[in-house]
Amino acid sequence: MRHLIDPLDFSQQEITSLLDLADRICADPAAYQDVAAHKKLATLFYEPSTRTRLSFEAAMLNLGGHVLGFPSETVSSASKGESVADTIRVVSCYADIVAMRHPKEGAPLRASRYSRIPVINAGDGGHQHPTQTMTDLMTIRRRKGRLNDLTIGLCGDLKFGRTVHSLIKTMARCENIRFVLISPEELRVPDYIITDVLEANHIPYKETRSLEESMPELDILYMTRVQKERFFNEEDYVRLKNSYILTKEKMALAKPDMAVLHPLPRVNEITLDVDDDPRAAYFEQVQNAVYVRMALIMTLLGLKDPKAEKEGN
Amino acid sequence: MRHLIDPLDFSQQEITSLLDLADRICADPAAYQDVAAHKKLATLFYEPSTRTRLSFEAAMLNLGGHVLGFPSETVSSASKGESVADTIRVVSCYADIVAMRHPKEGAPLRASRYSRIPVINAGDGGHQHPTQTMTDLMTIRRRKGRLNDLTIGLCGDLKFGRTVHSLIKTMARCENIRFVLISPEELRVPDYIITDVLEANHIPYKETRSLEESMPELDILYMTRVQKERFFNEEDYVRLKNSYILTKEKMALAKPDMAVLHPLPRVNEITLDVDDDPRAAYFEQVQNAVYVRMALIMTLLGLKDPKAEKEGN
Amino acid sequence: MRHLIDPLDFSQQEITSLLDLADRICADPAAYQDVAAHKKLATLFYEPSTRTRLSFEAAMLNLGGHVLGFPSETVSSASKGESVADTIRVVSCYADIVAMRHPKEGAPLRASRYSRIPVINAGDGGHQHPTQTMTDLMTIRRRKGRLNDLTIGLCGDLKFGRTVHSLIKTMARCENIRFVLISPEELRVPDYIITDVLEANHIPYKETRSLEESMPELDILYMTRVQKERFFNEEDYVRLKNSYILTKEKMALAKPDMAVLHPLPRVNEITLDVDDDPRAAYFEQVQNAVYVRMALIMTLLGLKDPKAEKEGN
Repeated sequence: MRHLIDPLDFSQQEITSLLDLADRICADPAAYQDVAAHKKLATLFYEPSTRTRLSFEAAMLNLGGHVLGFPSETVSSASKGESVADTIRVVSCYADIVAMRHPKEGAPLRASRYSRIPVINAGDGGHQHPTQTMTDLMTIRRRKGRLNDLTIGLCGDLKFGRTVHSLIKTMARCENIRFVLISPEELRVPDYIITDVLEANHIPYKETRSLEESMPELDILYMTRVQKERFFNEEDYVRLKNSYILTKEKMALAKPDMAVLHPLPRVNEITLDVDDDPRAAYFEQVQNAVYVRMALIMTLLGLKDPKAEKEGN
Repeated sequence: MRHLIDPLDFSQQEITSLLDLADRICADPAAYQDVAAHKKLATLFYEPSTRTRLSFEAAMLNLGGHVLGFPSETVSSASKGESVADTIRVVSCYADIVAMRHPKEGAPLRASRYSRIPVINAGDGGHQHPTQTMTDLMTIRRRKGRLNDLTIGLCGDLKFGRTVHSLIKTMARCENIRFVLISPEELRVPDYIITDVLEANHIPYKETRSLEESMPELDILYMTRVQKERFFNEEDYVRLKNSYILTKEKMALAKPDMAVLHPLPRVNEITLDVDDDPRAAYFEQVQNAVYVRMALIMTLLGLKDPKAEKEGN
Repeated sequence: MRHLIDPLDFSQQEITSLLDLADRICADPAAYQDVAAHKKLATLFYEPSTRTRLSFEAAMLNLGGHVLGFPSETVSSASKGESVADTIRVVSCYADIVAMRHPKEGAPLRASRYSRIPVINAGDGGHQHPTQTMTDLMTIRRRKGRLNDLTIGLCGDLKFGRTVHSLIKTMARCENIRFVLISPEELRVPDYIITDVLEANHIPYKETRSLEESMPELDILYMTRVQKERFFNEEDYVRLKNSYILTKEKMALAKPDMAVLHPLPRVNEITLDVDDDPRAAYFEQVQNAVYVRMALIMTLLGLKDPKAEKEGN
């Protein structure tokens, strides 16, 4: 039995298979509408994350399966002094697969050790959020036709943004990748990413303060939010924040086939006039997320791909 | 693509079609049990309204569709600084149709402008609640066989009750309607309803303080609750409240075929001994609400009516 | 129309039929996967009980039915001054069957009097939790092959534990049962259980302080939690609590075919090293609970048993 706890749990080959399946689903969703009939997904959300929860639930419903669970610990008694180990053994009697969101790092991993059913980490604290990473990869591959030979700009809060860390680690396994790390000094990528991931693998990277100057060289721009509460004083925040807002003007400096990604929710870090730019891929990401999660549920449950069969794969 | 934000979004002809469909569903619900198979309704309730949410969910499930969403902002992260415009674009990737309840007036309208899927206003602040109005119309039509030639009494809080305002505006488009507006002075219908809706359309009406005296002339009595907190002082409330409670004694003064409606929940404004009176239509309203919402979902999704086909309509 | 409010609502014969059906479901769950197609269960949980709610929802989904409801009063407006009588009449328009959890004793009973659909009590205050009792009975019967001729130990909080009281009352109807009541003095079984249930029915019982000494004679050990807040002073709690913790050491004193039950959640009253003991039946109970609830839903909705038909029963 497989789980998905860390994005690196899947080999590059397995990720390719997952993205291939997601692409086939995207091409013909109706072909998959009964694939998970009579299967049940439990969404155990110990902290609310409506977007992620609804995305998982939409994925399972699109496959013809059922959903049960809880949206927030406030309406749950699941944790009443009970260990994650006991909870998952109980939920193993109710469902065929679990998506777990937990404020504590490592909770989904611990759950997976006691589970009788596949566990998907739907975000554990500041730690991992592997299905977001798979979504990012799918969106990059669909936009650029490849996961190799790319200059990837990551902009905003590179210190605390777990999606950024996961994306770097996963893309580090691809060929000929270059990173441009765009952030205020205060929110630089953690040192271990630089030394253990980038330098250890001889991956070229550049750290910079300027989004504007970086624009022309990027194939992908991955935006994240710069949160006020990350700064020591408000002056620094006010002085810096505009530099990390993506505007129509900055977009004019970029390649015509660059793609802008953002894990959402967006507050003001991308202005609304960018939304209609064909390079804006962040709402496409939301749709891709559903297909990736459908592919993941199918993979972890070992469900047959009706399209693969027909084509004799 | 159509939305339903304001009860007046639908023409009188469209309302007639909707109520006809609701009647056909009511006559043979089983014929509709797979009509929305593989379709998904998202219920986005930024404030809890269990009755309305469950009614929408029952409607979608009765059509063989699926449901996902959130019951309250407290268990949602949907609004974390995110605009309604972004949220609806995200949810457009998860569902085929949305029912949105929001404490802010105009939020569902704004959502509909950015949505890729039909949006139903399930109540926005004190503003509109169009499916309640459709339910009221269905109940009146089923009870009386017509939406014309009626004397309609509205009793209780006519100032803040949005269902009352919507019902007046919608019924004002019917022929030969007369309104009897029964309320304490403090809770009279707003002036704009009198001038812009009733007088502008030459619709006869009477304002009165006495429910008792009005009873004999009514074809329909629409009850609402008089809330303590609407009064400046408790004395006035205590003095007045009994006048606006519907009792068996007051029912004895009414026509034998009058119908009593109430949007529920009821607190004490209708005594329990009225429940068994055949003229009490308020629990019937709850059932009709499900049929109206089934008809609305079918209409907005453009689903075929299996009964209409067979009869060659 | 039948409801299940009190475990004693079902005769011993009806309980046998229910457990027989649950056993048939357990033997071949796939045979039952469409039995409740197009039926809807409403889960009305006025206080959160995630385990119980998810168990009911899993049961209904396993039968091919749909689920709607609310997980907690905090995300519900169902009770806004509205009586349980009105709420259940409303919900009768939305669903075919209801599972209700309520902090107030008697609320589900009151609901059942006004309901047009079957009501299942999913726990009302400290009062009753009949589906837990049915689960306990199913687990005992599957483990021991009988509900008669048993020495049943009940350990821990016998004063406040409603599952304990229900189990005693129900097992009191079986033949040749003996109870060993193991608790601290402060948490003895209430007097009315002793006089009205045990002595009135000439059922042998023993009260004791020692779990250890009782182990060798038990066929069943039903563990419950000893909660700190039940004690007047912490000293007593600290002094006593270890006596009521089930360990591997204490298990060594028990019969080789004893079965350990626990209604869960467990905090520390059973040590983790007992989990792998084949006599540990508490996670099996969780699975049995789903089958019992499937059987109950089928029984109350009058659904045909596809396996019974084939065998000509």
